[in-house]
Amino acid sequence: MDAFTYFMPTKVVFGRDCVRAQGALLKELGAHALIVTGRSSQRNGALFDVLSALSANGQAATVFDRVSPNPTVACVREGVALLNAAGADFLVAIGGGSPMDAAKAIATLAVQPRSDEEIFTGGYADSALPMAHVPTTAGTGSEVTPYSILTNDRKQTKTSISSPAMFPRLAFLDGKYMRELPTMSAVNTALDAFSHAAEGMLSRNATPMSDMLARESLRILYPLLARTAGELTLEERDGLLYASMLAGMTIAQSGTTAVHGMGYPLTYFYHIDHGRANGLLLGETLRLCARKKVPALNNILSACGDTLEGVCATMDKLLGRREDIPAARLEEFAAGVSEKHVKKSAYEPTREEVRAIYFGSFPDAK
Amino acid sequence: MDAFTYFMPTKVVFGRDCVRAQGALLKELGAHALIVTGRSSQRNGALFDVLSALSANGQAATVFDRVSPNPTVACVREGVALLNAAGADFLVAIGGGSPMDAAKAIATLAVQPRSDEEIFTGGYADSALPMAHVPTTAGTGSEVTPYSILTNDRKQTKTSISSPAMFPRLAFLDGKYMRELPTMSAVNTALDAFSHAAEGMLSRNATPMSDMLARESLRILYPLLARTAGELTLEERDGLLYASMLAGMTIAQSGTTAVHGMGYPLTYFYHIDHGRANGLLLGETLRLCARKKVPALNNILSACGDTLEGVCATMDKLLGRREDIPAARLEEFAAGVSEKHVKKSAYEPTREEVRAIYFGSFPDAK
Repeated sequence: MDAFTYFMPTKVVFGRDCVRAQGALLKELGAHALIVTGRSSQRNGALFDVLSALSANGQAATVFDRVSPNPTVACVREGVALLNAAGADFLVAIGGGSPMDAAKAIATLAVQPRSDEEIFTGGYADSALPMAHVPTTAGTGSEVTPYSILTNDRKQTKTSISSPAMFPRLAFLDGKYMRELPTMSAVNTALDAFSHAAEGMLSRNATPMSDMLARESLRILYPLLARTAGELTLEERDGLLYASMLAGMTIAQSGTTAVHGMGYPLTYFYHIDHGRANGLLLGETLRLCARKKVPALNNILSACGDTLEGVCATMDKLLGRREDIPAARLEEFAAGVSEKHVKKSAYEPTREEVRAIYFGSFPDAK
Repeated sequence: MDAFTYFMPTKVVFGRDCVRAQGALLKELGAHALIVTGRSSQRNGALFDVLSALSANGQAATVFDRVSPNPTVACVREGVALLNAAGADFLVAIGGGSPMDAAKAIATLAVQPRSDEEIFTGGYADSALPMAHVPTTAGTGSEVTPYSILTNDRKQTKTSISSPAMFPRLAFLDGKYMRELPTMSAVNTALDAFSHAAEGMLSRNATPMSDMLARESLRILYPLLARTAGELTLEERDGLLYASMLAGMTIAQSGTTAVHGMGYPLTYFYHIDHGRANGLLLGETLRLCARKKVPALNNILSACGDTLEGVCATMDKLLGRREDIPAARLEEFAAGVSEKHVKKSAYEPTREEVRAIYFGSFPDAK
C-alpha cells in the first residue's frame, strides 16, 4: 500500500436536538464564546439553541453576526477586534461555509496575528482558540476540515489558509437547522458537497481513507442530489448533512483539485455561488477524466450507481441556465488558474484542457 | 438518521519506513520517552527505528520491555514507577495489544493515580501523558482506540479501562514490522481484527460511521484471513494492518459485544490467545444472529462476499483443533459472563443462548 496520513480530530455530535442534548460539551472550550454567524441563523433556531446551551453552562456569549458570503480579511479583522474587546476565549460558528471559515480565521489570527500581506503566505503554527461549529447548510463540510477559504483581493480570487488547529474541537450536526434553507441554497450546497467527494477521489493526494469516505458520501448524496430541487424531508436533510460531512472529511485528507481552483474566479468576479461554480465545471472535468481513462472516475460512477452522462444530466438539470460570461474572461481565467490546484489533480489538465473545461462549461460564451 | 457521536483524534501515519520518514512528529510529544514494549520488538526492527528517531530529535528514552501478554496491574505499576524514576513525560508503545494497552494504562495512572481497588471502577478524567503507538501485529487496533484491556485478578477476567485521553496522539503503521511474526500470531491477531469488525456491526452502539469503517475493514480483511495460515507478502501484511486499524476505529465508536465478554474467561483461565478466543466463539454467535434474523449479519456477509457457512468454514480451518474445556467450566463461564458486554449486542443473547454458544463452540466438552 502507498503511504498516507490520516487526521481528523473533531468530535462529531450528530442528531436531532444534539445542541440541546449535548450542549454541556461546550463547557470545556472556555468561559466566553464569540458566536460567529450570518443573519439567517436567527431564523433557523441554531443561534437560540447555542445561546441556551451556553447560558445553561454558565458561559458568556458575544454575537458577531456580520459575516457575509465569501468572507473578506476585513470581516475577519472585525471579528478578531470584537473577540478581543469582549474578552472571548473560544468561538462557536453557526451557518454555512462563510461563518465557519471566518470563525476559523478569527480563531487563528487571534493567537497568531499577521499583517494583510502575510495572511495568505502560509506557515501557520498549530495554534488557535478552540471552536465548536454548527453547520446549517449541507455543502461545505468545513466543520471537519482544517481549511478556511477567504476572499483574496490582492490575487482577485479565493485562497485557503490552513493549520491543524483549525479543525474545530466539536461539530454539532442537526438537519432541523436546514428546514428553512432556500431551495437555491440547498441545490448549490449539495453540488459543493458532491464536488468535494468527487474531487477527493480525483485528487493526486487521495488515500485509502479519503476514498472510503468519498465513496460513502457519494453513495448517500447522489440519490438525494436531484431531490434538492424540491421539498426535502427532514430525513433527507439529515442524509445530505451526513454526506456533506463525509465529503468534508474526504477533502480534509485529499484537498480539492483543479475544479475548485477554476471555480474561485467565477465566484470572485461573477459572484457565482461557490457550490454552483464547482457544479458548473464538474461535468466537463469528469468527461475529460473519461477521455483520459482516469481510474478514479469509475469508482465515482460506481458509488453514484449511474453513468457519466447520467451524472452530468442530473447536474445539468439542477444547474439550469448557465451564466453569460464573455469568452475573453474565460480566456483570462484559464490563463490565471492556480497552479497549486491544477497540480493536485490525479490527472493534471494541461492549460489547453483547462481552457476547454471553461468553454465546455459555458458553451454559449462569446 | 439516528443520533450518533464520532471521535478518533489519533494522527495515523501509514507506510513503509514511516517511523524513519516522519519520526520528527514525535518531537511535539515531550522530552523523554518511556518506550513500552515486549521482547520481540528487538527482532522486528521497530525499537531500533523508534530509538533512532528519538535520538535524531534530541529526545531521551528509557525502555520498559517487561510487558507480557494480557498485562497485569502489577506490570502497569512497574511501568509507572520506571516512568517516574526516569522523569519521562511521554510514551511510545511498540508491539501488539499488550504493550499498547499497558502503555495507555501507564500514561493514565501516571497523572491519575488510583489504588488497586479503584482501577476498574471507571470514571477516568480526560487526561493522560501523550503517546505514540507502533503496532507490530495486525489485530488489536489499540493504536486507534481509547481502551486499555488489563487482567483483572479480582474478577478473574480481563476488564477495560477507558478515557478519551487514551487515544494515542500518533500511530505509526508499517507492515514491515510484522515480517517476523509467527504464523500462529498472524492467525490469532487477524481473527481478533475480524471479530472487532463483525462485532462492531453487531453492536447495539453501531453508528453509520462505525458501520462504514467495519464494512471497509471486512472487505479488505476477509480475503486475507485464510492467507494468514501461510507465508504472507509484505503487501498482504500492509492490508492486514490497515484492516485491523479500521476495525479498531470501528470499536472505538461501537465497543465490542458478547463475543469479547465470553472470550475473556477463556483467556484468563485457559490462556487461550485473545484473538483466538474471539474466533472460537464468533461462528456460533453469527449462527445465532442468522436464526434471530439480525439485519447486520447480512451486511457482514456482504462485506465479506461469502455465505455464513463459508465464513464459519474459513474460521474453522484457521482455528484447527479446539481446546478441551470441561463442561462444568463452560457452565460457570456462561453464568458469569459480563452483563455489560451481553447488553452491548444488538441482539442480546439470553443466558441460555450464551450457554449454547459456549457449548456449540466446544462441542466435545464433557
